[in-house]
Amino acid sequence: MNNTMMVLEPSGDHYGSFFVIDRVLYDKTGEFQRVFVFESESLGRVLMLDDIFNVSTKMEAYYHEPMAHIPIAMLKEPKKILLIGGGDFGIAKQILKHTAVEELIMCELDPLVIEACREYFPEWADVENDPRFTLRVGDGCAYIHESAAESFDAVIIDSTDPILHAPMLISQDFYNEVHRTLTSSGVCMQIIADHILYPEAWETVVPRIQNTFAEYKPMFLPIPFYATGAWGLMIASKSEGIVQPQKCSSTFLQNISQLKTLTPERIQGWFSLTPELQAFFKAITNT
Amino acid sequence: MNNTMMVLEPSGDHYGSFFVIDRVLYDKTGEFQRVFVFESESLGRVLMLDDIFNVSTKMEAYYHEPMAHIPIAMLKEPKKILLIGGGDFGIAKQILKHTAVEELIMCELDPLVIEACREYFPEWADVENDPRFTLRVGDGCAYIHESAAESFDAVIIDSTDPILHAPMLISQDFYNEVHRTLTSSGVCMQIIADHILYPEAWETVVPRIQNTFAEYKPMFLPIPFYATGAWGLMIASKSEGIVQPQKCSSTFLQNISQLKTLTPERIQGWFSLTPELQAFFKAITNT
Repeated sequence: MNNTMMVLEPSGDHYGSFFVIDRVLYDKTGEFQRVFVFESESLGRVLMLDDIFNVSTKMEAYYHEPMAHIPIAMLKEPKKILLIGGGDFGIAKQILKHTAVEELIMCELDPLVIEACREYFPEWADVENDPRFTLRVGDGCAYIHESAAESFDAVIIDSTDPILHAPMLISQDFYNEVHRTLTSSGVCMQIIADHILYPEAWETVVPRIQNTFAEYKPMFLPIPFYATGAWGLMIASKSEGIVQPQKCSSTFLQNISQLKTLTPERIQGWFSLTPELQAFFKAITNT
Repeated sequence: MNNTMMVLEPSGDHYGSFFVIDRVLYDKTGEFQRVFVFESESLGRVLMLDDIFNVSTKMEAYYHEPMAHIPIAMLKEPKKILLIGGGDFGIAKQILKHTAVEELIMCELDPLVIEACREYFPEWADVENDPRFTLRVGDGCAYIHESAAESFDAVIIDSTDPILHAPMLISQDFYNEVHRTLTSSGVCMQIIADHILYPEAWETVVPRIQNTFAEYKPMFLPIPFYATGAWGLMIASKSEGIVQPQKCSSTFLQNISQLKTLTPERIQGWFSLTPELQAFFKAITNT
């Protein structure tokens, strides 16, 4: 290694990653967290929040594409979407590729994230020029409480690790509000942790989602540079029969410009849990 | 972190992983490499070779199952199999789950790996009690040179990183020998690096495999704790029409005892490269 400036990211007590920093671009600690942007030859520009890897310009599609396009694929009319978190604008950029989307409201808690990402990720932050896009800087939980019933066709939750850093975004009360504000065939998408290092995250989150939604399906997919590299997402719906992996068809995907990571077969594969994870999921859902 | 004894594993110049060591079990440096076995609460027992994570008891199935079962699925009669490397016995253990396999020859270069794994991974090393299993401690390249034409139904190459540590196992001469010693419908399976951090590994390996085999198909799958967590495997055959992902059917998989990570949909997904990787693969194969 030709550079000794690095940031360590522990994932649990026994494993972690380190990132060599070529150049610090932004480093401010505000009310909510440390917001740190740096350049790395391997990863491009990297955003870390409280020293946890969030996103990089080279790898963003592995996370942003599934989070945005899979829920939209499930909807007949993805008109109005609420994105909670998402302050790097990366998921917003993907969502607004869909001309059927009429309105996207993004609730980002931390003004420093917005400030940093406007400056250093302008290729995503340019969604602010899209008239369909509205930014609300503030608490997504408070916003969803104020929102009318059946307001949103999709609610996408792009938070930092909810167990450690955003417990309000996995609370039963929050899920009740997501359910209330979704249209009858609406869907909710959320990242849950890696079940390998954080089985307790699944044990906490999954039963609450199960309590709340008519339909809930986990996915298990590679997200390079996220801890072990293998991660869980959960999609849920207010009605049954909405979440159908085959809706992520080649016809649907070929209309998305500059798609980097998604294919129909890959997405179907993510919905198919490993036998080991199937058994764990059955145990925690009592099914 | 409650323990400061750790091993760092750089992956390229800008990224890497670290592993906290609860207890050192084995640490010897011999003619070929440092062989290091330790206990970790998160991972179980871990084998590192030259400070590179090779395998752990908790995670082994993510790597060993695809390496063993996907090539066997492609064969009508998987009678005789050559495993090059594989000294932890993990892939051998998976291969011998198939009653159709009559003979498995494992060529491991390093006697220290054998010594360490017999002691600390006895649940895999017990394949030595299977009469179908033969261990040859020595150079797999030399062995394949001495072998008769059309000897093996499958050759599985389980090496350390071939670019950095085992260049002879990705040489054109080696692939010619693999081709010569395979039966007419035989298959070859090899790990190639993560294309994200090591695109040059794909640029080196893929054209040689393309030069040698009638059919060659890459896969892209999550292997937790292997660098970025997203990894490439390559399967090739001497004849066309042999490598068909749908041969990894539920009928085939349900006959494998204690399967932890494989489902038909997951495997089909791995054969479907991301659009970004498809473009890269087309460029390096001129197709």
